[in-house]
Amino acid sequence: MGAQDGRRVTSVDVAKRAGVSQSAVSRAFSRTASIAPATREKILRAAAELDYRPNRIPAIMLSGRSGMVGVVVGGLSNPFYASALEHLVCSLRDQGLQVLLVHVDDALTLDSALEQLLGYRIDAVVTALAIGSEVVAQALGTLRIPVICFNSRLTGPWISTVSSNNRAAGVTAAHLLRERGVACPAWLAGPLRNAASVARGEGFREGLGALAAGLVSLQGDDTYESGYEAVSTMLARGVRPDGMFCSNDMMACGAIDALRDRAGLCCPRDVVLLGYDNIPQGAWRAYDLTTFDQGVERLVGAACALLAEALADGAEPVSQSLVIGAELLERGSTGPV
Amino acid sequence: MGAQDGRRVTSVDVAKRAGVSQSAVSRAFSRTASIAPATREKILRAAAELDYRPNRIPAIMLSGRSGMVGVVVGGLSNPFYASALEHLVCSLRDQGLQVLLVHVDDALTLDSALEQLLGYRIDAVVTALAIGSEVVAQALGTLRIPVICFNSRLTGPWISTVSSNNRAAGVTAAHLLRERGVACPAWLAGPLRNAASVARGEGFREGLGALAAGLVSLQGDDTYESGYEAVSTMLARGVRPDGMFCSNDMMACGAIDALRDRAGLCCPRDVVLLGYDNIPQGAWRAYDLTTFDQGVERLVGAACALLAEALADGAEPVSQSLVIGAELLERGSTGPV
Repeated sequence: MGAQDGRRVTSVDVAKRAGVSQSAVSRAFSRTASIAPATREKILRAAAELDYRPNRIPAIMLSGRSGMVGVVVGGLSNPFYASALEHLVCSLRDQGLQVLLVHVDDALTLDSALEQLLGYRIDAVVTALAIGSEVVAQALGTLRIPVICFNSRLTGPWISTVSSNNRAAGVTAAHLLRERGVACPAWLAGPLRNAASVARGEGFREGLGALAAGLVSLQGDDTYESGYEAVSTMLARGVRPDGMFCSNDMMACGAIDALRDRAGLCCPRDVVLLGYDNIPQGAWRAYDLTTFDQGVERLVGAACALLAEALADGAEPVSQSLVIGAELLERGSTGPV
Repeated sequence: MGAQDGRRVTSVDVAKRAGVSQSAVSRAFSRTASIAPATREKILRAAAELDYRPNRIPAIMLSGRSGMVGVVVGGLSNPFYASALEHLVCSLRDQGLQVLLVHVDDALTLDSALEQLLGYRIDAVVTALAIGSEVVAQALGTLRIPVICFNSRLTGPWISTVSSNNRAAGVTAAHLLRERGVACPAWLAGPLRNAASVARGEGFREGLGALAAGLVSLQGDDTYESGYEAVSTMLARGVRPDGMFCSNDMMACGAIDALRDRAGLCCPRDVVLLGYDNIPQGAWRAYDLTTFDQGVERLVGAACALLAEALADGAEPVSQSLVIGAELLERGSTGPV
């Protein structure tokens, strides 16, 4: 079609077909430029006939703004993150922003991934990585563009965070177990680098009061398998808690299956158990899991509001921390027995 | 820092600090341009000190190639699609391609989403949407860039597809149920617009032979909830199959829960049951689900190979259909009883 790469239709092709200048085509596709209505109509008709799409690249070059946000994810196998990504992509689209998606396995790959993205002049970064290292904070800080993190303890002049009220939820979980008469509580933690998990555990201990002295502490890595393994090992040692708070729903599902498979224990009859995240699988009948709903729409909404503020013309670097309340969602796994 | 938007460091800043010309900075960051090693080193040091990142936008403008692929997804709540996306993003990154992610709810929103992407001069589109309408095929065809679809019946000069061997898997499922002595089989279908589901159902009927005459046909929409509902309704009508093939694992998990909750039926003792996709949840102990592994790595690998071919310099529009064999993965839900 006479395009540079032999494929794409350019504004020159449209100008030729409409019998106008190339600059008239540019003006016809600009919201602000002035052009006679009849001329515009003629140009749009020619563009439609040729399947022409206006090119955003020249405008990006002039403004230094791409309208693209780098979204960094890791571990989409956790349905909570998949759902957060889905909401985030839709919300950014509604703000007229596109998502340049990067998947990283660890902090080491984040740096090279960001190098790639920066070549595209992304306007901002949003990340849901459960990584809180100083190295990452430094790398993100040098970008000189707004960075929004979920459930992170990262700080820096360009970094804002949106977090679930993890500590308060931990306290609530402890109070629920005490109401149910739990005497021997257990805590199934996520990895130490997960700041949200650490805060949930701290709140849980605080809320347990005197019961915290006998707390059974288990370590997982936020996966179903790690929950299953941690509880299986505990049962093999003869430890039998009657209440358990799991740092996320994936591990909680693993814990429920291990309790049943390995010791014939049922929730809530033998163990009063709850998780965190409100993943769809927690509502599946085999689990019927009490959990904390992080309110993914509210988390994403808050992140997008911070982003809009940071991207406003003339905005100074912003560093804010927003905390979103998590709601206890009671299902069968916590009874009443 | 003297950048256009008051934030970003430009090649002019680096040139000033290194005491060289701006074009020397460009050459230092080009793989092919010639430059004295000492000069390059001086420039790279200045760039590192300033946190400068080279700008890809001018090269995109010149070549008409962005190095970005539009990836269109819908329904990340199915862990199979979340996993496919994760693999795809990593594979494209290894090919030096970035992912511009679009989430669409239906065919109507696809068109406007694509308009947005085309402004960024994306090089290709990869889509895992279970949408096969002619409207979509036409919209994709007018892009004049390579389009790769998963499990789709879309066709067109620029459209290639990579599919699981759905029909053959359906035959295999039927043979397995017959081996287990099933006398009253049931088929739980996905939505009609899902070409993969239709093919699985056709193969299943074919493989059942004479048993197909008494086949119980149920309709779901690929979600857990729809599987639970379809089986609950069937049981309420007094229908009791002794074998069931579910078009995907999400519905199969719902079916297993409904069989147990509503009629106290267990798999494989009372019903020999299998699904399709090999989602992680199928391996969870509460389900222990026999399934077909689509081999997401192989599906994604085939798609990326097609893409590399289509994006090679001077490539003509390609339209290929690749079929990837699905492997039966036997777990507890099909016995032996």
